[in-house]
Amino acid sequence: MSSTHRQMHLGVFVLGTGNHIAGWRYPGAADSFVRLDVVQQIARTAERGKFDLLFVGDGLSAQMGAHPSFLVRFEPLTMLAALAGTTTHVGLGGTASTTYNEPYNLARQFASLDHLTSGRAAWNAVTSSEPGAGPNFGREHPRHDARYEVAEEFVDVVRGLWDCWDDDAVVADHATGLYVDPSKVRTLDHKGRFFQVKGPLNASRSPQGRPVIIQAGSSPPGLSLAARTADVVFSVVQDLGEARAAWAALKSRMADFGRDGREVALLPGVMPVLGATEAEARDKLNTLQSFVTGDNAATMLRNRLGMDVSGFAMDDLVPDLPLPDTSHGFARAMLSKARRERMTWRDLHNLTGAARGHWVVCGTPVQVADTLQEWFEADAADGFNILPPYFPGGFDDFVDQVVPILQARGLFRTDYTGRTLREHLGLTRPAV
Amino acid sequence: MSSTHRQMHLGVFVLGTGNHIAGWRYPGAADSFVRLDVVQQIARTAERGKFDLLFVGDGLSAQMGAHPSFLVRFEPLTMLAALAGTTTHVGLGGTASTTYNEPYNLARQFASLDHLTSGRAAWNAVTSSEPGAGPNFGREHPRHDARYEVAEEFVDVVRGLWDCWDDDAVVADHATGLYVDPSKVRTLDHKGRFFQVKGPLNASRSPQGRPVIIQAGSSPPGLSLAARTADVVFSVVQDLGEARAAWAALKSRMADFGRDGREVALLPGVMPVLGATEAEARDKLNTLQSFVTGDNAATMLRNRLGMDVSGFAMDDLVPDLPLPDTSHGFARAMLSKARRERMTWRDLHNLTGAARGHWVVCGTPVQVADTLQEWFEADAADGFNILPPYFPGGFDDFVDQVVPILQARGLFRTDYTGRTLREHLGLTRPAV
Repeated sequence: MSSTHRQMHLGVFVLGTGNHIAGWRYPGAADSFVRLDVVQQIARTAERGKFDLLFVGDGLSAQMGAHPSFLVRFEPLTMLAALAGTTTHVGLGGTASTTYNEPYNLARQFASLDHLTSGRAAWNAVTSSEPGAGPNFGREHPRHDARYEVAEEFVDVVRGLWDCWDDDAVVADHATGLYVDPSKVRTLDHKGRFFQVKGPLNASRSPQGRPVIIQAGSSPPGLSLAARTADVVFSVVQDLGEARAAWAALKSRMADFGRDGREVALLPGVMPVLGATEAEARDKLNTLQSFVTGDNAATMLRNRLGMDVSGFAMDDLVPDLPLPDTSHGFARAMLSKARRERMTWRDLHNLTGAARGHWVVCGTPVQVADTLQEWFEADAADGFNILPPYFPGGFDDFVDQVVPILQARGLFRTDYTGRTLREHLGLTRPAV
Repeated sequence: MSSTHRQMHLGVFVLGTGNHIAGWRYPGAADSFVRLDVVQQIARTAERGKFDLLFVGDGLSAQMGAHPSFLVRFEPLTMLAALAGTTTHVGLGGTASTTYNEPYNLARQFASLDHLTSGRAAWNAVTSSEPGAGPNFGREHPRHDARYEVAEEFVDVVRGLWDCWDDDAVVADHATGLYVDPSKVRTLDHKGRFFQVKGPLNASRSPQGRPVIIQAGSSPPGLSLAARTADVVFSVVQDLGEARAAWAALKSRMADFGRDGREVALLPGVMPVLGATEAEARDKLNTLQSFVTGDNAATMLRNRLGMDVSGFAMDDLVPDLPLPDTSHGFARAMLSKARRERMTWRDLHNLTGAARGHWVVCGTPVQVADTLQEWFEADAADGFNILPPYFPGGFDDFVDQVVPILQARGLFRTDYTGRTLREHLGLTRPAV
């Protein structure tokens, strides 16, 4: 990963009904997130586009009225595993919660996915921002900082379980009948504040050594966890200056943990809306926005800001508001943009409806490629997590129209050179 | 399912290294349980054989020294999901614990698998018999009866979550933008002794209405749970008389819950060892048995009986012993056979090493078919869970040599007539 040959890393954020809240209403778009053929087609397109990663988020409650794919969705591990046999190169990453899982179960599932994919699994470790999750688990949803305290230990336990087996512990010696060399398997014997886990895992060391770890926290504890443990970081951005500052903050924080900043790929989320002309792209975005119902946008905005904002008049300017206890990333990026651009609540509703608070880049393929290149070269990003507004067309457009430009400019691979996700990302395979 | 056309149901029990404890040492056998191509081949063979079900068990600890596939294994949900896209008809069933999972997570995973497979998912609800699981979850492993008390409520919560959505709740109305009809989705609001779960699930109702539920408990609480909630029951048998009694007991117990005995398929586990002649089959079994190491068999026997039996001399007769707190099914079948046949500890070691305590039928294809037919027609079984001693050859032999005989006798389907597992089993799709 020398800086002279620094290349972008690209992920695709999969929501079956599209990342735009009303993408499913776009002519020709898929309108279900529980159809295997839809996600298989997305995966094939990701491999055609030589993407590093296919990513699926998750939630642990049915958020009635919100984005349709937040309401009716595949469970990520099963969805990703279903793609194992029908893909060959693209990394397969999914969200799983450190608040509502057992580390032993989660470590097994991702190790299993890594075996099934010959080294393409990635875990997005989230603390779960939705308060609605708690009642589905008989618990009060923990507060933000408390969730991160658990997450720190949870991630350590999972990594520890992945490290219980030496690479060569399974000998399967036909002559002697020895299957596992017991001297190459260790218990973990973790006794922490939140977890006690003996181990070892009942899975041998997986092809990547450890599955790739993704994080998306942007609060101070989120940044710490990412800087200490992540291989890939997703971020919510709306402004180049803020993105550059966030990039520098992450890389600098990594140094506190003795890590080189190049060991993490920071991938801001971006929704590309493409047209043959800028006007055509604007028209497409306007069409998508015309499909947003007031209820959808209001529910999404309430969830993102962690407060009921229905008391505000739509034409009032968005005031200064405190960060919520749910998710800091979206709220900070959106409120900051609202202040910067003197947005009304109506503007903020529209912004939320479009890309759920993520950055929207609207224009011709060259304009979009120019913007991505600018951000990449300004040290605001190591690549991007692409959020097509709808599937399959919105993703096809990016892969067929923007990726070739990035490739021609030497910014993105023209073919896979590795087989594992770690290899795509230029990361070393961790030693036990 | 009229009795004049009663047909067998067949499952295949998948352990990558074979069901025989040393099957992996057989010439040509697969010797790993973490290879996707191996399980894909098994799945293709199951569909060639028109099997109802492909089944994978599970455990929550690495049982060092035991069966190799108990030590290094795929996590079942991810393994089954990986088969979703490369199979079309066979049911895909896997074990998941009611003791070490959250019902909300588990309900989602199986609903997701049912969507991914267009209606072929099955959950084997187990309470986890291994004491070694507890320390991996920071808990003391609960006692047998306590585990079943939790399991009763756990299964109800999962079924309740599956029932939160009407079949037609997702409307995806492109004209109005209404995605879900909120009047067709309900919370569960379960407040029980062990679980409080609000719901609804964030998954629409799955193709089978509810994934198929499998159970394998044979203790009084296990029998109750199976009689009340199961669609398929696995059993451990060694004797026709005992199997007939167990079959009658299950069907009779179902009546206590207002269910018709035909609503459950009872499938005893059986390991077929085939040869062109009976002597050839015996030789094959002897070859397999010669591969068993003393350690393997002793570990397996200790686990099955729930006690350390190393103090007994190998040539002593097996005495009367109490049933363990771990798993009753295996211990009861094995101890009963040992008494009936005046077996020594050496004999019991050999029996355990062969099929982990399951029934072994050794002979020509016609002899094996005869035996299965006899049991089926004697109301000792509604079909069988086939445990090939090794893969792929041991399963190929059964599918190519025994299945055609069963088909020619009108005992087993010659092609699939349905698409979902419920349809294969002749079960109705449950109403909400």
